[in-house]
Amino acid sequence: MRISARNQIKGIVVEVKKGATTSHVRVDIGGDNILTSSITNEAVDELGIKAKSAVTVVVKASDMMIGVD
Amino acid sequence: MRISARNQIKGIVVEVKKGATTSHVRVDIGGDNILTSSITNEAVDELGIKAKSAVTVVVKASDMMIGVD
Amino acid sequence: MRISARNQIKGIVVEVKKGATTSHVRVDIGGDNILTSSITNEAVDELGIKAKSAVTVVVKASDMMIGVD
Amino acid sequence: MRISARNQIKGIVVEVKKGATTSHVRVDIGGDNILTSSITNEAVDELGIKAKSAVTVVVKASDMMIGVD
Amino acid sequence: MRISARNQIKGIVVEVKKGATTSHVRVDIGGDNILTSSITNEAVDELGIKAKSAVTVVVKASDMMIGVD
Amino acid sequence: MRISARNQIKGIVVEVKKGATTSHVRVDIGGDNILTSSITNEAVDELGIKAKSAVTVVVKASDMMIGVD
Repeated sequence: MRISARNQIKGIVVEVKKGATTSHVRVDIGGDNILTSSITNEAVDELGIKAKSAVTVVVKASDMMIGVD
Repeated sequence: MRISARNQIKGIVVEVKKGATTSHVRVDIGGDNILTSSITNEAVDELGIKAKSAVTVVVKASDMMIGVD
Repeated sequence: MRISARNQIKGIVVEVKKGATTSHVRVDIGGDNILTSSITNEAVDELGIKAKSAVTVVVKASDMMIGVD
Repeated sequence: MRISARNQIKGIVVEVKKGATTSHVRVDIGGDNILTSSITNEAVDELGIKAKSAVTVVVKASDMMIGVD
Repeated sequence: MRISARNQIKGIVVEVKKGATTSHVRVDIGGDNILTSSITNEAVDELGIKAKSAVTVVVKASDMMIGVD
Repeated sequence: MRISARNQIKGIVVEVKKGATTSHVRVDIGGDNILTSSITNEAVDELGIKAKSAVTVVVKASDMMIGVD
């Protein structure tokens, strides 16, 4: 499936930390950037996400803010 | 201000496209990744965001999904 | 690509209304439910979304609320 | 209260799974679609949401994406 | 309808600015705070939102961030 | 850093409730309004958020809905 979300960044999972219902997945996208995604434990299990998995981080344009120093 | 959002990625604005109320800001974060952020025209004006601005893209962990091929 | 978002509902596009930067896509998912998605014009063009397209509506679990009468 | 969110789908709760702070509520909206909503435990308690509750799933248009095969 | 969203703040609309598909609604919640909500033009029309309307601003807990100086 | 999010409300933390991966932070913004923000435990630790902290609640305009009685 191709998805409308404008932001799709390839990376490698460095850690999956499972909570009671919610997991935090940390993804290295290169350039010293490690991103953190908060998704359901069910999604982690269903997609087989674990350390060293090749994944795509996906963010809708309307969920992306801009900061200026 | 420091903000709780887990994902803060430095980049350079490559384009600002203004609509009637909403702007699309495209940001080069390196590694061949151009991100698109949809924010209000007011934010663009107030922060003085324009092509070549150095900015930080900010995304809350709960707004970040994971895709697997 | 398979995506972590828990909610993926099949439907048929009934209308695409384009604004200056943002489009509203209305999708019939059956059972008298017409959903409205607000996405970028670029996504509409890139994915070739138009009336009668077969699509999947995708929503992250953390973006879904519950109402009670 | 009537709310601006464009997507309001009636359904029946099939499961509430409580975590430490966050619950996952699964709702049958018919047509073989079971949706998953991630909300606070406090909301579950305050609204008395439990299996077999008649509820309305609510999603803002800007949180709804479109996928194409 | 009562809704699971944890944040419901009463206020008075001070301005509605309509774009091509998206409106910005500014709401005075007191204490020198004017909030801005970006919703569809259809929602504005259907709910009859206009300057001086008494409204409730609604935000899901997972969409609320915390900043520290 | 200044951020594009249109809604920035000053308040005082009244409670931090930590779950397995996710915390709920309750913030008094005056006028009898207590807001609830759901953020990662890591953000709470990194920013040193605790009861009586002076903070700014931050919400993107596109995550803010309007309700009418």
